[in-house]
Amino acid sequence: MHPYSSGNYQIPNPNYPFVPQGQYYNPYSEPGWVWWNYPQDYGGSYRLMAPQRLTFVLVHGSWADAHFWDGVAAVLRSQGNIVYTPEYAGHGTDSNKKVTHAMITKSVVDYIKQLNLLDIILVGHSFGGTVIQKVAEQVPDRIKRLVFWDAFVLKDGESLADELPPQTRQSFEELRKMSNDDTIMLPFDTFRALFVNIATTDDAKLFYTSVAPEPAKPLFENLDLKAFYTLQIPKSYVYFYQDNVLPQGEGYGWNPHMSIRLGLFRLIVGDGDHFTDTRTRPAYLAQKIFDASRD
Amino acid sequence: MHPYSSGNYQIPNPNYPFVPQGQYYNPYSEPGWVWWNYPQDYGGSYRLMAPQRLTFVLVHGSWADAHFWDGVAAVLRSQGNIVYTPEYAGHGTDSNKKVTHAMITKSVVDYIKQLNLLDIILVGHSFGGTVIQKVAEQVPDRIKRLVFWDAFVLKDGESLADELPPQTRQSFEELRKMSNDDTIMLPFDTFRALFVNIATTDDAKLFYTSVAPEPAKPLFENLDLKAFYTLQIPKSYVYFYQDNVLPQGEGYGWNPHMSIRLGLFRLIVGDGDHFTDTRTRPAYLAQKIFDASRD
Amino acid sequence: MHPYSSGNYQIPNPNYPFVPQGQYYNPYSEPGWVWWNYPQDYGGSYRLMAPQRLTFVLVHGSWADAHFWDGVAAVLRSQGNIVYTPEYAGHGTDSNKKVTHAMITKSVVDYIKQLNLLDIILVGHSFGGTVIQKVAEQVPDRIKRLVFWDAFVLKDGESLADELPPQTRQSFEELRKMSNDDTIMLPFDTFRALFVNIATTDDAKLFYTSVAPEPAKPLFENLDLKAFYTLQIPKSYVYFYQDNVLPQGEGYGWNPHMSIRLGLFRLIVGDGDHFTDTRTRPAYLAQKIFDASRD
Repeated sequence: MHPYSSGNYQIPNPNYPFVPQGQYYNPYSEPGWVWWNYPQDYGGSYRLMAPQRLTFVLVHGSWADAHFWDGVAAVLRSQGNIVYTPEYAGHGTDSNKKVTHAMITKSVVDYIKQLNLLDIILVGHSFGGTVIQKVAEQVPDRIKRLVFWDAFVLKDGESLADELPPQTRQSFEELRKMSNDDTIMLPFDTFRALFVNIATTDDAKLFYTSVAPEPAKPLFENLDLKAFYTLQIPKSYVYFYQDNVLPQGEGYGWNPHMSIRLGLFRLIVGDGDHFTDTRTRPAYLAQKIFDASRD
Repeated sequence: MHPYSSGNYQIPNPNYPFVPQGQYYNPYSEPGWVWWNYPQDYGGSYRLMAPQRLTFVLVHGSWADAHFWDGVAAVLRSQGNIVYTPEYAGHGTDSNKKVTHAMITKSVVDYIKQLNLLDIILVGHSFGGTVIQKVAEQVPDRIKRLVFWDAFVLKDGESLADELPPQTRQSFEELRKMSNDDTIMLPFDTFRALFVNIATTDDAKLFYTSVAPEPAKPLFENLDLKAFYTLQIPKSYVYFYQDNVLPQGEGYGWNPHMSIRLGLFRLIVGDGDHFTDTRTRPAYLAQKIFDASRD
Repeated sequence: MHPYSSGNYQIPNPNYPFVPQGQYYNPYSEPGWVWWNYPQDYGGSYRLMAPQRLTFVLVHGSWADAHFWDGVAAVLRSQGNIVYTPEYAGHGTDSNKKVTHAMITKSVVDYIKQLNLLDIILVGHSFGGTVIQKVAEQVPDRIKRLVFWDAFVLKDGESLADELPPQTRQSFEELRKMSNDDTIMLPFDTFRALFVNIATTDDAKLFYTSVAPEPAKPLFENLDLKAFYTLQIPKSYVYFYQDNVLPQGEGYGWNPHMSIRLGLFRLIVGDGDHFTDTRTRPAYLAQKIFDASRD
């Protein structure tokens, strides 16, 4: 079902178009390199190690479903990693939109338990950050590392809506009232400006065809996160600096505003936005998630 | 006067040296791409659409004139866009430095009306942001989108000087007092550190030969912007993160400090500074402005 | 002892893999370039000038020694610059860990005086920022420019520890108490998350083999910096935005939180972290330091 892919490219590899230039550069090949005053003896056989293979569980956010990860998962699998992309209540093929945050969490917890997944890198994007916070409370011993990619890290007792600037919150509340099934459907202009701001016009329209009404209640539920803040699981934060869902400062934002709540965490920064790279640069995004996940 | 150029390169094109790698990458050409689990059927004929052609009106800032845009305009025109670069009162060939903000605004409004420009992308840089705020109040129906590039977005009743950190404001006030015609001439060291910080030494000196004394009064005038904040025109903000005119935080800066005043806006980020890319990377800057402007 | 290297590559050069694309791009080679409306006449012989040659004194930070700079120094020397990398008290081959900030400062001041160095670019990294602040007070006439790379710029009367967020400060205080010689030894997980976050697993482990216990006292000493804040020496700040030693916002961080204390300064931004690029991309880092240092 989730077979090892014998993908024919590697991260890093010399033809890999999305590795920032030089990230995997071997300094010893540079002209003028001064060997003799180097503190370590690398020997004559220095070379890149085979990259670590990991087990990922990728948890999408709002206005998305498990297909959000298709491109990233394909890249990670081709590199030898195992990748799971659980769907959760109220999303994807689940037509019941009357869901709670606890139901969503249960979807992911059940998935992990039923497949008996161990030693996992649990990745959450956007609203998915709140999901992996709650999932981690229930299956901490199965998690090797938590990775938040432009994801909400809520304080104990907060709701996601508490982290939105007043105008965005008000807009969401108005959209919620307009629905007849307690969902929020993003207008194209809002989606285009906040979620896929760097995309071409055509790609933005293409993305929008995947956007379905989002169950509103989980975005406004206050979450008890006392247990989360006692967990000793290693944590990373991937921040994409063109993300426009939240202002990055003035008391709001992904990093450092919410990331610092993680305590000690590894930071990885990229230049994408909230959604676009999942389809236009899946290998770039996969590399950033991998950078955040490896030992 | 502003003919369509039949420029022989395109944005994007395969040889375009300034497109961030992979921004226009076709994911379907990647080895290992998983077609079958993709939610949309792209068909077998997926390809890049011809880019949209737009009408730009580019409004420069202080210590500059309409030639500021020469490089960017050439690139945009070569791509099939129509580009206008109006000069305004107190700048360029206008030797009268005793101007007000209203006179500057009138220059641009008159230019737009006389040429009967419609459906325009109105771009403001730096002080030019305050100009397009006021121009938009007068000709809103002619504007398709407002684009601010490292540009001031003033609150109702503010002056540009109100957004300067105390030391910069004090420095400007002292320079103003030193002049005999109520202008501010930037010393080279200030210009070099704040406006062209990433430039080579030679380029910095070359840029400085274009710097003329700036009329001081418009920088200190408080602007009534009540009408601006009722406009429903789409807006974008282009932020270059090496820009050093303002600190980016601590209560100052382009983004998010002033950009969030736009309400819903599209964010595009680049790695340049305040002036340098207009000459060293005009195609890069043109692409960022285009990304902010397309539908 | 510090001979001119006749290094066989240059900054910039066409094969230089770490120059951001187009930074040294000649716009006049671009198709469609509009010569005739350009305000300056560049003549037909425009070309890159030979880059300026400078004298660097590179001052490392905590949990490092003078070898920290080996890669960067090799690149800068190969380009024709003169580079000095002084060791200071309590570090490197000095086994006496009972040192004060004044002893460290004296090491660098004595080094500069004994070699009679003049017209120097004095570069400080991390804790080294506090060192060059104090060194500059003692030998201001020998310094051409101060360059801070992700370096502390303390206010008069502050200690480095005052700029740490509460959790990091508490962690350092606990580690200090655990030592029997008033040093702080970073656990691997802390070092990996904060200092080498973008490194591969192998590189992170390799870096850690160089980490020695750091004398704790200088990090907690309050420094009199009244004289520093009267100096008129030109200043630059190099900020790497994946640096995770400090949160970049919320009242903490390198830029703009501490950089703005420099008054007028040149800003240069890169995409690295606190340590990694010294070994994986020494040419990239050297270029950023050079960009900050040239006239």
